[in-house]
Amino acid sequence: MRALFIAAHADDVEISAGGTIQVLIEEGYEVWTTTTAQHAKERTIEAVEAAEILGAIYIPVVGSIRYLTTYWDDYNFSLIVTPSSTDSHEEHRQAAELGVGLARGNDITLMEMNHAIPGGIYRMPQLNHFVTFSVDQMEIKALAVHAYRSQKEKYGSWWPLAIKARDRYYGLMADRVGVSFAEGFNIVHS
Amino acid sequence: MRALFIAAHADDVEISAGGTIQVLIEEGYEVWTTTTAQHAKERTIEAVEAAEILGAIYIPVVGSIRYLTTYWDDYNFSLIVTPSSTDSHEEHRQAAELGVGLARGNDITLMEMNHAIPGGIYRMPQLNHFVTFSVDQMEIKALAVHAYRSQKEKYGSWWPLAIKARDRYYGLMADRVGVSFAEGFNIVHS
Amino acid sequence: MRALFIAAHADDVEISAGGTIQVLIEEGYEVWTTTTAQHAKERTIEAVEAAEILGAIYIPVVGSIRYLTTYWDDYNFSLIVTPSSTDSHEEHRQAAELGVGLARGNDITLMEMNHAIPGGIYRMPQLNHFVTFSVDQMEIKALAVHAYRSQKEKYGSWWPLAIKARDRYYGLMADRVGVSFAEGFNIVHS
Amino acid sequence: MRALFIAAHADDVEISAGGTIQVLIEEGYEVWTTTTAQHAKERTIEAVEAAEILGAIYIPVVGSIRYLTTYWDDYNFSLIVTPSSTDSHEEHRQAAELGVGLARGNDITLMEMNHAIPGGIYRMPQLNHFVTFSVDQMEIKALAVHAYRSQKEKYGSWWPLAIKARDRYYGLMADRVGVSFAEGFNIVHS
Amino acid sequence: MRALFIAAHADDVEISAGGTIQVLIEEGYEVWTTTTAQHAKERTIEAVEAAEILGAIYIPVVGSIRYLTTYWDDYNFSLIVTPSSTDSHEEHRQAAELGVGLARGNDITLMEMNHAIPGGIYRMPQLNHFVTFSVDQMEIKALAVHAYRSQKEKYGSWWPLAIKARDRYYGLMADRVGVSFAEGFNIVHS
Amino acid sequence: MRALFIAAHADDVEISAGGTIQVLIEEGYEVWTTTTAQHAKERTIEAVEAAEILGAIYIPVVGSIRYLTTYWDDYNFSLIVTPSSTDSHEEHRQAAELGVGLARGNDITLMEMNHAIPGGIYRMPQLNHFVTFSVDQMEIKALAVHAYRSQKEKYGSWWPLAIKARDRYYGLMADRVGVSFAEGFNIVHS
Repeated sequence: MRALFIAAHADDVEISAGGTIQVLIEEGYEVWTTTTAQHAKERTIEAVEAAEILGAIYIPVVGSIRYLTTYWDDYNFSLIVTPSSTDSHEEHRQAAELGVGLARGNDITLMEMNHAIPGGIYRMPQLNHFVTFSVDQMEIKALAVHAYRSQKEKYGSWWPLAIKARDRYYGLMADRVGVSFAEGFNIVHS
Repeated sequence: MRALFIAAHADDVEISAGGTIQVLIEEGYEVWTTTTAQHAKERTIEAVEAAEILGAIYIPVVGSIRYLTTYWDDYNFSLIVTPSSTDSHEEHRQAAELGVGLARGNDITLMEMNHAIPGGIYRMPQLNHFVTFSVDQMEIKALAVHAYRSQKEKYGSWWPLAIKARDRYYGLMADRVGVSFAEGFNIVHS
Repeated sequence: MRALFIAAHADDVEISAGGTIQVLIEEGYEVWTTTTAQHAKERTIEAVEAAEILGAIYIPVVGSIRYLTTYWDDYNFSLIVTPSSTDSHEEHRQAAELGVGLARGNDITLMEMNHAIPGGIYRMPQLNHFVTFSVDQMEIKALAVHAYRSQKEKYGSWWPLAIKARDRYYGLMADRVGVSFAEGFNIVHS
Repeated sequence: MRALFIAAHADDVEISAGGTIQVLIEEGYEVWTTTTAQHAKERTIEAVEAAEILGAIYIPVVGSIRYLTTYWDDYNFSLIVTPSSTDSHEEHRQAAELGVGLARGNDITLMEMNHAIPGGIYRMPQLNHFVTFSVDQMEIKALAVHAYRSQKEKYGSWWPLAIKARDRYYGLMADRVGVSFAEGFNIVHS
Repeated sequence: MRALFIAAHADDVEISAGGTIQVLIEEGYEVWTTTTAQHAKERTIEAVEAAEILGAIYIPVVGSIRYLTTYWDDYNFSLIVTPSSTDSHEEHRQAAELGVGLARGNDITLMEMNHAIPGGIYRMPQLNHFVTFSVDQMEIKALAVHAYRSQKEKYGSWWPLAIKARDRYYGLMADRVGVSFAEGFNIVHS
Repeated sequence: MRALFIAAHADDVEISAGGTIQVLIEEGYEVWTTTTAQHAKERTIEAVEAAEILGAIYIPVVGSIRYLTTYWDDYNFSLIVTPSSTDSHEEHRQAAELGVGLARGNDITLMEMNHAIPGGIYRMPQLNHFVTFSVDQMEIKALAVHAYRSQKEKYGSWWPLAIKARDRYYGLMADRVGVSFAEGFNIVHS
């Protein structure tokens, strides 16, 4: 079983699906992550480090997406995860469309992530699936997010705090008994 | 300025809009709350107490809604807030439709609340407006929620925790600098 | 694992999900079917017979739905399937809303069936999940549909033919290699 | 009366609307087809042949669309048919947008085709109009589809079978008495 | 050819479709109008008079709708026009649902009217069809609207003025050359 | 307080929001208008003149949008108004997306205009906010529209007439007592 997480920007996947990636790996998935926008070298190194923390494989965009598209059948992804196709950021929508195109003529599961942004939050996908994960997995996710030192400097401390609050909120909603966290998705096709 | 919060069940308004009610009162609004479902006497007493904590006026449903509808013009509400018209609970949708009907032929603002429920959460309204409030106002909101002793017994401690996590998440999104909380709404008409 | 199929009318489940029920039973599910509209005694007997052919348990509506609602936690359904919540038939929408209510505060999968009707077909749910089944299972499904002798007399021979054509169409779309049939669903929550 | 069918790829129009084109010609329409994507010379020849079988005029894309746009008023199309504007294939959406632009400031009918694809099928337009045609017209449509020898080799025999099953399904739904076939459309403007 | 206009309240049809009814009668249609809400005797008399002015037949609701439903096949309506199914007034939505039910299993055209209301206007159907009519027909429509003396007293002179302004706006949009008026509709099924 | 109106074509803002701009300036806003498409020199001069009539500042597109994007934080716009993101004209949608991007990570109000076009009108945004203005302000708006001499020649006299009819219609709906005009908007985020 092989899953592909397509994001526009390095750190999007960690924020939206860092817990889910750990759960998938536990279930036996080989998880790949990739990004469609150009990044500075520093951020690419951070992305490799963040993927390593989660147990995933990060493929920088140059040469990768086209490669994936061309040799699609050899990879046999059974799960593709993208940003929301209605996101307010154009580059997120482009990454989503790439996923739709890859999943189009094949019998795979396609899900959209719930990207949290300061100020706006509108155009959120209708979440119809939640993946819960443990406190320990939340710690590892936080480490992966913190690997993006360049972003932490830019946005400040509110950023990891907001992610943790959201995941705690979803966790309490999805599983009121335990002490779990959760990430929300929109299943487009299954 | 007069605002009307219509919910299906006593405690819905406190959970979804307890902070916003305090902000409106600060801005000079007279805030009324009401509920459309039948409740046990105990819960009605809790609702009166909760409204009092927030500084609002609670009108039990019997005789109130029809009264409001009939004498509409005398009340001059400039803001009506209801559950989401796409909520998964039938009684929530009915309360929403009541608000739509009241706001129909009049030039007032109509907003839908974001009702959080365990397990499901799907069919969330598309939030396009956030009201931020302070840590102190969060404390008062928590007191109002805790006034529903009957509900706390039923649902346990996850319940106030989840509300606080959600409001913190929205607060960090809506105002990343401060230490505020926030509640999300869907403006239907303004 | 226990699945509940809620329809408005006896024969709806067989037409829309007769193949899927067989696949679920193969996977170890205990499958219950029920109907929310009143039926003549003759059609109820046909419904029992049709369920038996598929390997499912049919519970006539009187006393069942309310019973299910009240004792929800004891049954532990992990899958609920209903008509489409946007169907053009009011009784179908009501059955759909019942399912939404049951699935609301619980972590289960909720799917909507694709109900085919002559003449109209508009307001079809957006199908995002297909269940394929074999030629042999199509034969058993056809037997279950034919158990509704009262309906066959009313609608004539176009009826089972149209169902077979649709399932063949979906089957060829969902799995172009094999000779399978398929039924389409809209996953609302998973 | 003049109708324009705009597709992304040669063979899209034949698959989705080959029967409807024959019906329109019977009603007195002059039917033009065109494609917006680049094709190999072989497939262009197939497209000309397929159009000829249906009685339509195929205009290869180079120089045509811009030409049509510029001299719009001279052509007086009263019907424009495009792929679905919500299709999962980017080139289909682009062809749809072209049709929307052409129909924008003019009082003409605009319809979207129902493009069937293996594996996916999601993002289907909401069909609100069906055109029925006879068994003989189905035979001619099949000949037009088979003119695409290059596609038949690529996709195999499931392809014409699936088209026939779909048209039979729609035909039985749209006209339960006869033995007709049908194609489904979404009327965007009329 | 026979058309049925179903409204909730007497005067809805005249306001939304008074010009279209005249156009249909010119084209050879027999036009029936009916209303689903209870009215005072005075307003019923006004409704009969208004229908007469337009050349239509008004059937008061008592006994009519059920009658129409039961004997559906004898009437052979080819066009049904209702309020919008997303209208903010519950009784309008109910009338719309009645039309959907009648059109469900039959091959007829179903359209929704564009009901104009003071103050709100939100939840307008997406208009995809416009029917233009002449200045003279606008005069006759105005006479039909003015037949509702009870409503004119209630709402005052803004009411016929607003209708005329809207129809002029749509007329200029739909046919920029002439001096026509127009009414807008949403084709649901055709 | 500073507002930015982004349109695709010079004259779009005047037609859709010429009255609203005057109301905003009365309320103390500094209003900027800009356009994203290339225009002939003549039309740019007309745009400057039209903005001057309304009391706004017109910034031609070359160098402006990118400038605004880069130095966003210095401008502190609290209101951004764009065409509809579902408009049938591609350049309108592009201008809308630009506004969404600017408003994305900031706590500002984003509204879409209601662009009227001859013949089509479909894909209208769901209007949920109306701004009323006086007869005198309508006169000034008309002057601003008439400043586009090049467009008046192209489209003829129906054009200002249709705009006036629409604004009168909305005015009568939004405020039935007075003699006001109004423009409609879709609040996306507030």
